Formats: sequence, C-alpha cells, structure tokens
Amino acid sequence: MNRERLIVIGGVAAGMSAASRARKLKPDMEILVFEKGGYVSYAGCGLPYLISDKVKSSDRLVVYDAKFFKEKRNIDVFLHHEVKRIFTQRKAVMVRNIATGEGKEYPYDKLLIATGARPFVPPIKGMDSAGVFTLRPLEDGIAIKEYIGRNSPKQGLLIGAGYIGMEMAESFAEAGLKVTLLEKMPNILGTMDSEITEIIEQELNRNNVTLLKSKAVVEFAGENSHLRRAILDNGESLDADIAVVGAGLRPNSEIAKDAGIELGKTGAIKVNQRMETNIPDIYAAGDCAEAYHLVLNRNVYIPLATTANKQGRAAGENIAGGSASFPGIVGTAIFKVFDLEVGRTGITEKEAKAEGIEYAANVIEHGSRAPYYPGVSPIRIKLLADKKTGRLLGAQMVGREGVSKRIDVFATAITAKMSVHEIRDLDLGYAPPFAPPYDPILIAADELHKKLPDKR
Amino acid sequence: MNRERLIVIGGVAAGMSAASRARKLKPDMEILVFEKGGYVSYAGCGLPYLISDKVKSSDRLVVYDAKFFKEKRNIDVFLHHEVKRIFTQRKAVMVRNIATGEGKEYPYDKLLIATGARPFVPPIKGMDSAGVFTLRPLEDGIAIKEYIGRNSPKQGLLIGAGYIGMEMAESFAEAGLKVTLLEKMPNILGTMDSEITEIIEQELNRNNVTLLKSKAVVEFAGENSHLRRAILDNGESLDADIAVVGAGLRPNSEIAKDAGIELGKTGAIKVNQRMETNIPDIYAAGDCAEAYHLVLNRNVYIPLATTANKQGRAAGENIAGGSASFPGIVGTAIFKVFDLEVGRTGITEKEAKAEGIEYAANVIEHGSRAPYYPGVSPIRIKLLADKKTGRLLGAQMVGREGVSKRIDVFATAITAKMSVHEIRDLDLGYAPPFAPPYDPILIAADELHKKLPDKR
Repeated sequence: MNRERLIVIGGVAAGMSAASRARKLKPDMEILVFEKGGYVSYAGCGLPYLISDKVKSSDRLVVYDAKFFKEKRNIDVFLHHEVKRIFTQRKAVMVRNIATGEGKEYPYDKLLIATGARPFVPPIKGMDSAGVFTLRPLEDGIAIKEYIGRNSPKQGLLIGAGYIGMEMAESFAEAGLKVTLLEKMPNILGTMDSEITEIIEQELNRNNVTLLKSKAVVEFAGENSHLRRAILDNGESLDADIAVVGAGLRPNSEIAKDAGIELGKTGAIKVNQRMETNIPDIYAAGDCAEAYHLVLNRNVYIPLATTANKQGRAAGENIAGGSASFPGIVGTAIFKVFDLEVGRTGITEKEAKAEGIEYAANVIEHGSRAPYYPGVSPIRIKLLADKKTGRLLGAQMVGREGVSKRIDVFATAITAKMSVHEIRDLDLGYAPPFAPPYDPILIAADELHKKLPDKR
Repeated sequence: MNRERLIVIGGVAAGMSAASRARKLKPDMEILVFEKGGYVSYAGCGLPYLISDKVKSSDRLVVYDAKFFKEKRNIDVFLHHEVKRIFTQRKAVMVRNIATGEGKEYPYDKLLIATGARPFVPPIKGMDSAGVFTLRPLEDGIAIKEYIGRNSPKQGLLIGAGYIGMEMAESFAEAGLKVTLLEKMPNILGTMDSEITEIIEQELNRNNVTLLKSKAVVEFAGENSHLRRAILDNGESLDADIAVVGAGLRPNSEIAKDAGIELGKTGAIKVNQRMETNIPDIYAAGDCAEAYHLVLNRNVYIPLATTANKQGRAAGENIAGGSASFPGIVGTAIFKVFDLEVGRTGITEKEAKAEGIEYAANVIEHGSRAPYYPGVSPIRIKLLADKKTGRLLGAQMVGREGVSKRIDVFATAITAKMSVHEIRDLDLGYAPPFAPPYDPILIAADELHKKLPDKR
C-alpha cells in the first residue's frame, strides 16, 4: 500500500461528510467507504415526506450517489458491503460483500466508524408481518410508500410518540389514512415538558389522530401474514393494516465494542471533541457516537443528522491532519406536526429535576406578529434558567408560525452562556409582519428574569 | 406637592413604557404624561399597513388609550399638550394646552424626555400641497388613508428609499396605485450593501415599482393646491397625485438642548446606560435619544420602536429607584417588501470601511428548507467578521422566507461576541420543512471562516 488509506464504515451523513472533507484536504489519500445498504448520502429525515408524497420520488432524497463520489471526489464507495470486524492491532477491517457472501480484509491507516443507529424494536409478536415497518434506511421509506400504493391501507398505526411519530402522524394523514398513535409512556415526546405537549395533543386531536398513552402493542396479528390488527397489553385489539414502529434508536456500536473500542455510558461510541476514540487512528462520528452536551457538561446520546454532519466534518478534517474540534451540542430539535411548529433546545424541567439542578421556569404566550397584523398567532414558550445565575438552561416553543428559527436564538444564547437578563435586552428584529415590538423571545426572558430570586 | 412626581414628555413607545414601569414599581408616585398629539401608545410602524388597508382601522394601532392609562394604571395623560420649556434649576416644565393656547408650569421631581423624532423634510417647494405627506404620527397615516379614499389617486410618489420607502412601496401598490420610488443617493437602503439591495431592486421591478436613483424633487406642483406632479432637480417632471416624503428622521432634542441638556455628536440626547442625561433627575429615552452601539462601541442615533420600548422600560425602572441598565443595540432591523423578507444586524461593509475596521466579508446563497421539500427558496447572506479574531461584525440577509428571525441568531451571536468559527458549529434546529441540515447561517459562517487569514 503506497498511498495513505482512509476506510469509512457507513456512507450516510457522518461518513460521507468525513470522506468529502478528508478528500478536500488530502487530494492524494485513498478513501474507501463501505456501506451496508444500497444508498449513500441520503436524507433520512425526508422519509415522512416521501411517504406522504410531498416528495414524489426517493431520488430527491439522495443528495449524491456512489457514482458522483467516485467521479467527482475520487472516493470509492462499496454499496451492500458490511464491515464485520475491526482488527485494531494489524489495522484492518473484514468486509463482507452482501451480494456474493464473500469476505475480504482491507488494511487501513485511518478508520472512521460511522455505522449510524438502528430502530429499537420492542418485543412484539408478529413484527415480521407484511405491513409492519421501521423507518430507518431509505429502503424502509421506499417500502412503506410502495406498500401504501399497492395495498391501500386505511388504518395506520404508529408506535412511539417521539419526533418520528409526530412527523409520521402528519404523513399518514396526508396519505389519506386514519391514524392511531400509541405511546407506552404516560406522556408524548419525552424530550419536552407538558406545557408544550398539551398543545401538540390538541393539534393531533384536531387532525383526528387517535392518541393512546400508557399502552403497548404485544402482537401484530393478520391474515395471510398481512397486518390486520394490533393486540395491546391490556388485551384490547386495534384495527390496523399498516404500522410503523418508531420507539427510539440504538447506536450501531457493537462492532466497535468487539474491537475493544470504548463505549460511553450511553452505549454509543465514546469520542473526544476531535472525534477520536480511545484507539489511535480510529475515529467515530454520527449516530453511532456520543456528543458532548454543553449544558449537561458530559457526553450524551442524541442522534440527529445535523450533529452527524458536523461530527463527520470535524473527523474528516482531523483524519486529514487538521486540528478541528466539534465543541458539542445543546440538544436543539425542531419538527412540524400538522400546522404546528415545535422547537426545543437545552434541557427540560424534567431533565433539570433528574439532574438535581436548581432552576426557575416560566411559561408565556405571545403573538408571532404585531397584534394588528393579519395572520398573527400565539407562540407558547417555556424557559428554564439556573436559579442563582439566571443563565438560560433550556427553551421549548410551540406555535403555528415563527417557532422553528426563533428556537435558534435560544440555542445560540445557551451556547454563549447568556442569562435571561441579557437575553431580554437583545436587539432582535421588529417589523409588524414578522414580530411584535417585544419579540416573544424577549417577553419570555423578561418574565423568567422577574421570577429569579436574585435579579442580578 | 406631597407625592413624588414624574413628568413624561411624549406618550408613545418610550414615554408610555417608562410611565408604566415606574407605576408598577412605585404605586404612590404621581405620573403626568404630556403628549403633543392626539394619541398615546400607538404602533407607528403599522402605518404602511393601515394605508394599504391590511389593517382596517386606526383603532387597531392604538395599543392603549389615555382612558386606559388613567383608569387602569393611574397615569394622567394630557393629549394635545406640548411642553415648551424645561427649567432645570427649579425643576419644572412649561406646558401649552394646544386647544386653548394656555400655558401652565408643572414642577417635577423626575423628568423623562421622550419627545421622539420628526421626519426630515428636504427643501422642496410646494411641500404644503394637498396630497403631500410625511409619515410620522398616527394622524399622518389616518390622513393618507382618508386622502386615498376621497381622491382616488393613481400615481404614488415616494421620496426616500429607506425602510419606510420600501414598506410604503408595497402599501401603495396594494392600495392600487402605480408607484415611483425616488432616492437622492446612488443606492437604495443606505444601511445595507449592494449584494443585498440588488435583490431588493429586482423585487421592486418585478412589482412594477419605478425606481429612480440619484434624483431629487425640487418642487411639488399642482392644480387648486392639489398635487399633480413633481419637478426633479434635472428639470424632469413626474406625474404624481399623492406623495410621501420619507427622507429620514431628526431627533426632537431642541427642548433638551435649550435647557442645557447635553446632546451627542448625532444631535440626539446623550444618555448613559441608565438612560440618564447630564442633568440630575432628567432622563431621556426613545427616538429623541442616542443608544450605545455594541459593535461600534460608541453612541449612535438609530431610532427604532423596539429600542425605544427597552430604553423606556430601563428609564422607568431607574426613575422608580431601580438600577436598570440598557446595554445597547447592535443595529438590527428587518422589513418586508412585497414577497421579500430582509434583515440586517451589526455593521455593513460600507460602515466597516468608513470606520477603518479590518474585516473579511463573504456572500453565500443557500436554501431555506431541505432541498427536496416543497417551497424551498434561496436565502442570500452577507457576513462581515473582524479579520484578525474572526468575531462577527455584521450580517445582512434577504429571501422569500426564513429571514426575519434567522437574522436574530446573528444579532445574538454579535452581542455574545462570537466568532464565525463558533457560529459554524452552533446547534441549530433542523427539520426538512424549516431548514436544511446545514442551516444557511452555518454555511455563511463556515464560508467566511475559510476566508480568514488565521483560522483560529
């Protein structure tokens, strides 16, 4: 082997970001990407919109294909190739060609593990029934879309009321299905507090989504191995002819663990801010890895595409001899559910309690535009601040407009360690079509500031 | 006089904010507000939308009326009362009742000057023709709306291509007028750079607004004292049967100057962060006062409602014995012009040059949503950073959606003195309907970071 070789395991967000960045910085490096599935560099977050037909074809979700990477970036992508083992001593990986079943060993100089995550599947009988899906690789989305087209299901069942459950509820409804959303916990959206989720529950209800909380499916039952109904843990039976299980993600970290690479407490691969694992020349990035949380001050497992991209870029830069560092995340997430925009960043009241952090919290509601401007609608904001310093710890927001990017102001303020006192004086934009003179952000910060025992 | 007395000169944004805040903190204080006009606490920024009939009645623009302040807040509002002089030695003001012409002296313990600003009127013959307007107090907006209703003008002429000119171009077009926008400078929107304004010019053109640059009106000519045409400085004549002059604002600071209160270099009243003038017990706030600019590190005159509100609140708090400080502004402004959202914060390239600041600048264009999500449209962003430290100095943004609140992320980052290197790693929200995985904000910061000579 003459040229230095980078091997990347997994060719989606983190893997292809890293490969591209490394290529840019080191034109002479040999770069091999092994991808278990049939696509690289696709937008997994677009699957609900593919299924609802808002996005007509799966081609639209593939940012670049393997041919592009070979021809334009000189990156060798091997589709349907699964890396089975990592040999850290002799610096090589064992790769299985899924089509032929053949195995082959490839040596590396640098290795990036970007194996992603897989859906957690609760123990349910009949998970293999036709019409029962998870939603992870692009193939899943394509399969669901095809199944709807071929079988015209009427009753959609969604297991898990997290972000995917919310987006799929809208997606199924737009595809003309009657939707039931089932959550085993007493609350939907575990990453948000009840003052926000109650608005979301109203919106689900307004859109005829049947929400069942504190319930679990124990069996998918059917006819001719096609799903027809789900049996719940209380013995009830629900009609359903298509189901998507979205009960959270688990990191694909086993291959790393087996090779002696350290995992964090979360079960995902432990990395530092340079995206290095504990083994020299082995990096990890994306949904298989942890990220440093700038409010909790420790590694967490919050797999999101935007973090995967940034981690991949940093890993690629360091692999190519650079000195990039990805400082971490603050837990920002946004989603759309029917006519609502929802956003969150930092930590929730639930999390603050669990962490034993002394906090003050407050909820406000304020208009998205000037009160007299047509189309104004209320935005509800919940803020949390450190009780002593007033430093912002978290924000949650819901409304019909103006939420998805307003949450970024709070994400920025949290990163900058601003107090609510500082936030209330921020010079934010004002124009009647877009905001009232006191933006809801400023009102929220001011009202929480008033509740702090020590007003600076 | 038994109770401590606060006198407020001017009852719009700053004045009523201060009066309300002082009342809240000091229930026993006597509070008198003298307002020259016929309305208090109205939303002046809503006037273009009143004129276009998007807002049906001027009542909608009056947040609270004098009766409300008397009954609910125990604040005595005197409409049509003009304060003519301030006697700083004996702590009193001379007030003229405009209706009766009578003058009366009122002593004060604390005084707030919130006299606002007035439109600058260039020397134009025939400014008093019927159909020629400025746009400042609520009365102006009502008069323009009535004039359009009564006289059905066809040709609207706007003098001055600033924020008001932009909003009025849309307003006149929506009211069915043919619009000509005239600017005496070679560029529209002096507070923005050409990479942004060129997009705005295209939008004006697309909406049949005739834009005339480097031109000035020397005379309004008419029939029966009604406006019929404008004569330009090059001798040309323009048909026009209604005109609005929006050529900038001048602070109403003369009354302060006459009383020996110090003005800043800008001509507006000099205040510290507590909103105190150089004379004990006299405060100033709002469009008659300066504000501290956190990028330029000196006082500036940028009269905006949102600053007026915050300054008023701080003044009211300190008047009532508190210790509030308004840290300052970063020059954020947003506006809507037809289907465009435009935002700016910090300083422009023009300003950086004028200040002798060593900067790096870059312009990018990126989609507002995921590339495959319906409705995605390009956002153009120009960023400026300090060449040595990478600290963000300014941002300008234009697009069909997602601009007005994205600019607030930059405003927050500038306030927190963040570098573009830090901004490119911000944990911003991502969901296909609202943003691509790398938000345009992150792309803009990353691309400018790459142009810096010293990459941290």
